[in-house]
Amino acid sequence: MPQHVNLYRISMRGPGDVAGLAALLESGEIRAEDIVAILGKTEGNGGVNDFTREYACMSLANLLAAHMRCSADAVEKRVALVMSGGTEGVLSPHMSVFVRSRVDGKPAGKRLAIGVAQTREFLPEELGRQAQIDETAKAVREAMQDADIGGTDVHFVQIKCPLLTAERVAAARARGHEPVTDEAYASMAYSRGASALGVAVALGETRADIGEAELLRDWSAYSAVASTSAGIELTRSVIAVMGNSASAAGELIIGHAVMRDAIDLAGVLDAFASVGLNGERGLDAESAARVVNVFAKAEPSTDGNIRGFRHTMLNDSDITPTRHARAAVGGLIAGVMGSGAIYVSGGAEHQGPMGGGPIAVVARVEV
Amino acid sequence: MPQHVNLYRISMRGPGDVAGLAALLESGEIRAEDIVAILGKTEGNGGVNDFTREYACMSLANLLAAHMRCSADAVEKRVALVMSGGTEGVLSPHMSVFVRSRVDGKPAGKRLAIGVAQTREFLPEELGRQAQIDETAKAVREAMQDADIGGTDVHFVQIKCPLLTAERVAAARARGHEPVTDEAYASMAYSRGASALGVAVALGETRADIGEAELLRDWSAYSAVASTSAGIELTRSVIAVMGNSASAAGELIIGHAVMRDAIDLAGVLDAFASVGLNGERGLDAESAARVVNVFAKAEPSTDGNIRGFRHTMLNDSDITPTRHARAAVGGLIAGVMGSGAIYVSGGAEHQGPMGGGPIAVVARVEV
Amino acid sequence: MPQHVNLYRISMRGPGDVAGLAALLESGEIRAEDIVAILGKTEGNGGVNDFTREYACMSLANLLAAHMRCSADAVEKRVALVMSGGTEGVLSPHMSVFVRSRVDGKPAGKRLAIGVAQTREFLPEELGRQAQIDETAKAVREAMQDADIGGTDVHFVQIKCPLLTAERVAAARARGHEPVTDEAYASMAYSRGASALGVAVALGETRADIGEAELLRDWSAYSAVASTSAGIELTRSVIAVMGNSASAAGELIIGHAVMRDAIDLAGVLDAFASVGLNGERGLDAESAARVVNVFAKAEPSTDGNIRGFRHTMLNDSDITPTRHARAAVGGLIAGVMGSGAIYVSGGAEHQGPMGGGPIAVVARVEV
Amino acid sequence: MPQHVNLYRISMRGPGDVAGLAALLESGEIRAEDIVAILGKTEGNGGVNDFTREYACMSLANLLAAHMRCSADAVEKRVALVMSGGTEGVLSPHMSVFVRSRVDGKPAGKRLAIGVAQTREFLPEELGRQAQIDETAKAVREAMQDADIGGTDVHFVQIKCPLLTAERVAAARARGHEPVTDEAYASMAYSRGASALGVAVALGETRADIGEAELLRDWSAYSAVASTSAGIELTRSVIAVMGNSASAAGELIIGHAVMRDAIDLAGVLDAFASVGLNGERGLDAESAARVVNVFAKAEPSTDGNIRGFRHTMLNDSDITPTRHARAAVGGLIAGVMGSGAIYVSGGAEHQGPMGGGPIAVVARVEV
Repeated sequence: MPQHVNLYRISMRGPGDVAGLAALLESGEIRAEDIVAILGKTEGNGGVNDFTREYACMSLANLLAAHMRCSADAVEKRVALVMSGGTEGVLSPHMSVFVRSRVDGKPAGKRLAIGVAQTREFLPEELGRQAQIDETAKAVREAMQDADIGGTDVHFVQIKCPLLTAERVAAARARGHEPVTDEAYASMAYSRGASALGVAVALGETRADIGEAELLRDWSAYSAVASTSAGIELTRSVIAVMGNSASAAGELIIGHAVMRDAIDLAGVLDAFASVGLNGERGLDAESAARVVNVFAKAEPSTDGNIRGFRHTMLNDSDITPTRHARAAVGGLIAGVMGSGAIYVSGGAEHQGPMGGGPIAVVARVEV
Repeated sequence: MPQHVNLYRISMRGPGDVAGLAALLESGEIRAEDIVAILGKTEGNGGVNDFTREYACMSLANLLAAHMRCSADAVEKRVALVMSGGTEGVLSPHMSVFVRSRVDGKPAGKRLAIGVAQTREFLPEELGRQAQIDETAKAVREAMQDADIGGTDVHFVQIKCPLLTAERVAAARARGHEPVTDEAYASMAYSRGASALGVAVALGETRADIGEAELLRDWSAYSAVASTSAGIELTRSVIAVMGNSASAAGELIIGHAVMRDAIDLAGVLDAFASVGLNGERGLDAESAARVVNVFAKAEPSTDGNIRGFRHTMLNDSDITPTRHARAAVGGLIAGVMGSGAIYVSGGAEHQGPMGGGPIAVVARVEV
Repeated sequence: MPQHVNLYRISMRGPGDVAGLAALLESGEIRAEDIVAILGKTEGNGGVNDFTREYACMSLANLLAAHMRCSADAVEKRVALVMSGGTEGVLSPHMSVFVRSRVDGKPAGKRLAIGVAQTREFLPEELGRQAQIDETAKAVREAMQDADIGGTDVHFVQIKCPLLTAERVAAARARGHEPVTDEAYASMAYSRGASALGVAVALGETRADIGEAELLRDWSAYSAVASTSAGIELTRSVIAVMGNSASAAGELIIGHAVMRDAIDLAGVLDAFASVGLNGERGLDAESAARVVNVFAKAEPSTDGNIRGFRHTMLNDSDITPTRHARAAVGGLIAGVMGSGAIYVSGGAEHQGPMGGGPIAVVARVEV
Repeated sequence: MPQHVNLYRISMRGPGDVAGLAALLESGEIRAEDIVAILGKTEGNGGVNDFTREYACMSLANLLAAHMRCSADAVEKRVALVMSGGTEGVLSPHMSVFVRSRVDGKPAGKRLAIGVAQTREFLPEELGRQAQIDETAKAVREAMQDADIGGTDVHFVQIKCPLLTAERVAAARARGHEPVTDEAYASMAYSRGASALGVAVALGETRADIGEAELLRDWSAYSAVASTSAGIELTRSVIAVMGNSASAAGELIIGHAVMRDAIDLAGVLDAFASVGLNGERGLDAESAARVVNVFAKAEPSTDGNIRGFRHTMLNDSDITPTRHARAAVGGLIAGVMGSGAIYVSGGAEHQGPMGGGPIAVVARVEV
């Protein structure tokens, strides 16, 4: 039986607010067992001490555990809960709930499919190193199989990966191992980058022997569909692959484009165009009704410039670079989309070209 | 003899960097005596303790003083130095230098003109009150006369106004007067709002008896062309009025539109269209060559929502609301403009509709 | 039967970490039903968007609900869960668990007693107004009765009170009521101040007719034992009164002193001396073993000076004043205490003299 | 003729406020030519984008240039201008002006002497590497000779050193050299640490072959008197050595102690005791009149703990670790000193033991 994927975008009044999802579960609109992934934007700082992510995860796990009659731990193992912290500027806290069921009938064309997988637990010293790249690539392939999506039909790969804390660094050192960095904030970049290279390897977007030597150094190596996010609340990586599959049925399709820098309006428009939408003056009401959500990554260019003009995101000791980037790119995409309830995540190392990032759009098929 | 206004956009490598302007002065391209206003974006936090503004002002005043053989104080009295702090996200530190000279010949059509004026010194307890509104309106009219611009041809009124500090509040209280607020950050909003209402009154954009009772309360009262900015470095207000004047000669024109909210892409496009430019996929190379700069104001909507979706700008105790708003709106406008070296200033109380703001574009006339 | 109060200080590895308390519950060391109050320091920003407080509350409520076989809501109604956000500088996240049981025997002298009470729900427009002062005073008297402590034996009154958010302000206005402020961060000061005046009224520390007219204006009106903390997670106030009672048995006593400003080392030493401890070179090992915890409030002086020298806490748009104050006062007290796992809470409006604050110490009686 | 050193502590109303020093120059109390060093605390964030340091330096250089009839550049080459950004918590912006003259007569005992020196310009790739350690050691020895102070009589060595910016990193890479880090904030730690190791080598506090291999790794290697501060405004290091010299005349002496961690009250008291002062309940009026200023360094312990309790300074993505540390240690020292106008600088890598730091006191000799 073909899979049928639905996507719900639900506003959140706070990181612990799961009332919207609870209502859909109680009404029977969604079956808890069918939820394969939840991507959330929570209103923390997106940095090391952003506890809104684990708070939201815990709230979701508790809710789903009650509905699935299992433990919260079992929920977290079964559902890809990916909370990306930081709703700077016009961004609005919300969650995207991916629901997958089996339906009768024959698919009418390629439709949105989703597959999930997890890596094994990582040791602190493995983060930002070859082991993380390799294990991630392996898990991406598993998720593609789970979704029955071929390589060119993959439009978005979301990964939640671990980071280093002072405690984890100390633990590694106590065992005689030196982590790649001892700065927690810096470790987030290493972990995101290694995860993205894992996607690029799995999808054949770079040469196969790309590895830790290129990590955070060779920016020409990137995935055009990877979106990776580091969080303090986990020590393994969770992967969700999204694409269009001939064996999927449903009303949704996904497409993507790449922003070549943080102000690439044309790239944003191309992403909407990939699912048949024209956003040149912002989506009109009809188009807006077709879109379910946008998923994008943002980052400051590491050379300190955008089209020849200096930006200050990397030299600001008050606001972290990822907060700056989410706010700016979020502002641009929201202008086209007509809504701030979109998924824009910071830290796009090896996710799209340096200073740019992937952008995917999920929309209802035109009828 | 008609006035001839030129506008130079000069990148800054830091708040004290005046090398670009120095080079233009030394080459004779610009005469120091012809400079009427400098609007800068400096890389501070844009808040109470943003010293990049006064640092830039001091650096500019020192430079011009040497060229004009007068004191730095005399420069600050003669030239409208308006530094707006905050280059969040993709915004790039730079200055816009308005140069006005008298030329022979007959104007060929309405062209960019600029006029400047200053209010008297304000007492701390006058900020955010009727006196500030009235004195501002008076000075706006003086600046319009200075520029020879009629009301409907005014497209941008830039005002730099004072704010309250703990010390100024204490000083007022010592004299037996209670300022409108004792929070420095909050005082910036009062001062910006009163200045904007002063513009609205001067231009007849609201009913004539609008006053302190409506300040920060009645958001239907606003100016579509006011841009006001509060700074710790001054205790009076400095006003620069820009518009197109039949008595001006030159190659530049100015136009404006209003963003109705922080994600109003159509409003941004309208501003570019007002000077004959199409930014629907971002400016093309030819159009980009015509634009000199964009001047816009940004703010979070005070009801906490944008088109029905909650934003978190007003509840964030780590980043001030104006930093959020500049980053987001700057990201959107930069996407159309193709450059982050634009003037986007935070705190748009009574400047455009609530949550939106004015946006003006200066461009070369089409030839 | 006399009450017997015990106090446990338990370190937290994150806002959701309740493992330490869980172990004590599982071992039988603490009975869940005996817990009357938990005061925590969580590692958020202590501001409007500090979700570590509600996350910790939710984690604690879930834990206790499982042990008490009731709902998490019922736990929150029964136990005073007061999380104070902000562990700046050397402060260390931890919780103080107050456990009260009934024991046989005759008290040997005045010992630590605790009483709790709650106000009714507040409407947004009641915060920072007379209603909040009056209802708080009433609840403080109830808590004193619950504890059987006379007025002069009260050494610490902890209150958790609500704050205003953009949404709550909008809700009040929709009903035609104007809240005391529409700035969320500013509302925290109003709510803390009104709560403290309620304590002062209940204990007769000020004249009985003190009211909203004096709130945040007349700093000579204050309570020497009030500690109030505003949080987004509740809409009523929760009160815990601590003191020494002749009808209490146990091994703990409490004393207090007042810091007259943020650098009042002598005040800190006096607080330790009030329970018989000498901290002049920091507590020695024997004294340290006697102390259980310190509870203090901190704030920047509103006149911008400390003993004639200007501080910058009120003019910093990057870090909120309460974060500055907790870090500084926490550094001083930790130096005497020899540990950063102390309860230092920011925002001491009407709690101790302007710029200073109450400081209480709980210690084992000397044997 | 013996040198005579005087020290003036002057409050600043802002980073550009040099009015206090100007008055002393105009009254003839200080001769501009006699100023050898100015150590300031300015109210920036102390991070990469703290422009209050260069703004203060520029203001001071302009003032002194006018008095010394030379260029501002010449002033900066001649006088050690060391601005340390960050007056968190109770700290108060001020400058310490060291004035050295030659006087007749015979010294009556060892008195405060000061010597200054500068390194050569550093390339970006030399920062945090052996070259910086070696060149610093060399310059420290020159400064000691300039001051005529022997090794054991050195009580404080202040160094201002460069940092890396995105632009400097790019410049190094363009020349084919890889800097030690590409994170601006992280580079500050490398530069401060290398400078401190240079002091330790010059004074024989560590084994002579200590080098870049130990930098930011072997915390047992440290100087007990080094105080190093990184700033964006210079590309060479400036060194000021302070101690007591038999060939100096004057009324001031200096002493020091070491804080072993950030809450080491005993260490603070020892520093005051080293110049004959008892601060056990805070300085009394007589003692306070003798002290001129305190100079100390602060940092978070890198293992994330202080005396067994976790701190959160290293995992906070909203406030940099140095801001946390300055606030806390500043609070402790100010409590003893009775004033926040003290020099507490953040980032104490290899300056005192890990998590602690040196603390020096300058006081008038007892009469």
